[in-house]
Amino acid sequence: MKHIDVCLTPDLLHLHTVENTIVVVADVFRATSCMVTAFAYGVKTIVPVATIEECQQWQERGYLAAAERNAHRVDGFELDNSPFTYMDEQIRGANVAMTTTNGTLAITKSRSAVKVLVGSFLNLDAVARFLKTEPYDVMVLCAGWKGRVNLEDTLFAGALIDRLKDSYALAEDSAIVAHRLYCDGKENLVGYMANASHIRRLQRLGIQKDITYCLQHDLYDVVPVLRGNALVAMEM
Amino acid sequence: MKHIDVCLTPDLLHLHTVENTIVVVADVFRATSCMVTAFAYGVKTIVPVATIEECQQWQERGYLAAAERNAHRVDGFELDNSPFTYMDEQIRGANVAMTTTNGTLAITKSRSAVKVLVGSFLNLDAVARFLKTEPYDVMVLCAGWKGRVNLEDTLFAGALIDRLKDSYALAEDSAIVAHRLYCDGKENLVGYMANASHIRRLQRLGIQKDITYCLQHDLYDVVPVLRGNALVAMEM
Repeated sequence: MKHIDVCLTPDLLHLHTVENTIVVVADVFRATSCMVTAFAYGVKTIVPVATIEECQQWQERGYLAAAERNAHRVDGFELDNSPFTYMDEQIRGANVAMTTTNGTLAITKSRSAVKVLVGSFLNLDAVARFLKTEPYDVMVLCAGWKGRVNLEDTLFAGALIDRLKDSYALAEDSAIVAHRLYCDGKENLVGYMANASHIRRLQRLGIQKDITYCLQHDLYDVVPVLRGNALVAMEM
Repeated sequence: MKHIDVCLTPDLLHLHTVENTIVVVADVFRATSCMVTAFAYGVKTIVPVATIEECQQWQERGYLAAAERNAHRVDGFELDNSPFTYMDEQIRGANVAMTTTNGTLAITKSRSAVKVLVGSFLNLDAVARFLKTEPYDVMVLCAGWKGRVNLEDTLFAGALIDRLKDSYALAEDSAIVAHRLYCDGKENLVGYMANASHIRRLQRLGIQKDITYCLQHDLYDVVPVLRGNALVAMEM
């Protein structure tokens, strides 16, 4: 039987081997939700980069560029970290470079995996269906917040486990923690998230509509996958 | 308001500052449950050490010595990592040196805190009552399993939060995760633990009675605290 494991933050990645594993990176608020939305609206490629300087270099080559630090857009870049930014006709066919506080770093740290996929509640079912067709173990890499565990990415890991539980065994306790938590909260995820730290951080920024949007399940049938240094869309 | 935070494994300790904080170390299966039991049965001091070599040095000075690695007793030491070992008259007044896979390392890593306490379900209420009398923030340090998050120590953190929730604010999402998990499982902790990885590891060793014992709440009114290099008991 295949196994599914959860790495609750990139700061615990040293405990995991990803070489024979498909990694699903989740940064629900908001990087991976943005990426999924962008591909659903026709973006051609997204290059995730770790630093603002790299993002500028791609911008100079003609890419649309998105840079976020501490939940704010960095000056000088076209796109920010709200998924609604990507619901735009000008996005269709574009190449995008993106750097965020947590999500893009988690992707670049996973390069040695068999495949690196981008997961969010928005494409949960598409990711689950794709994984079932593959022979590999799965690890969900929660992007967390500056190394810390966060509730929303843990809940995503639990949601994916819930979709896969009949065909995968849970590898370790972190997977059990994530799954139990999701089962506990799934009837009302928005309410369940109400006191989470990042929610408070985002609410101070006045973006409740982003939160509600990012917690919707199965809006899009797209699975972003890392090919070389760029994410591209697999239609499911 | 005071804050309570949870560090889900010692491998995430770099994200926390413990200098103005009381740290409660939990290694429910079985190091901290052993320590609490030992003090309840009259042990005078326990010196937690990181290595087997240090443990031998204390043994040569006349200490009773307990060394565990990978849930097994190390040859050449009197005591093992079962709490039932410590329910013995010969223990009364003894000085003990102890090294375990996870728990003692977590204690030695926390030395810069205001105080380091030893927590387990067995002395949950005593720890909670003591903390309420102190002006400091609290961090529960879950010993985990070789750096990984485990279910039992996370549940202990949630149980302590549940006892303190009226007088402490939750600092970060890891505290929310732990508390929600405990509330989800508290009606039947033994059942809730049934599939956890360390439980499977311990069941292979045939020590179900240790598991059931360690999940009992509030058996003892003792709070072990680190003074210099040794744990001593505070009676509550």
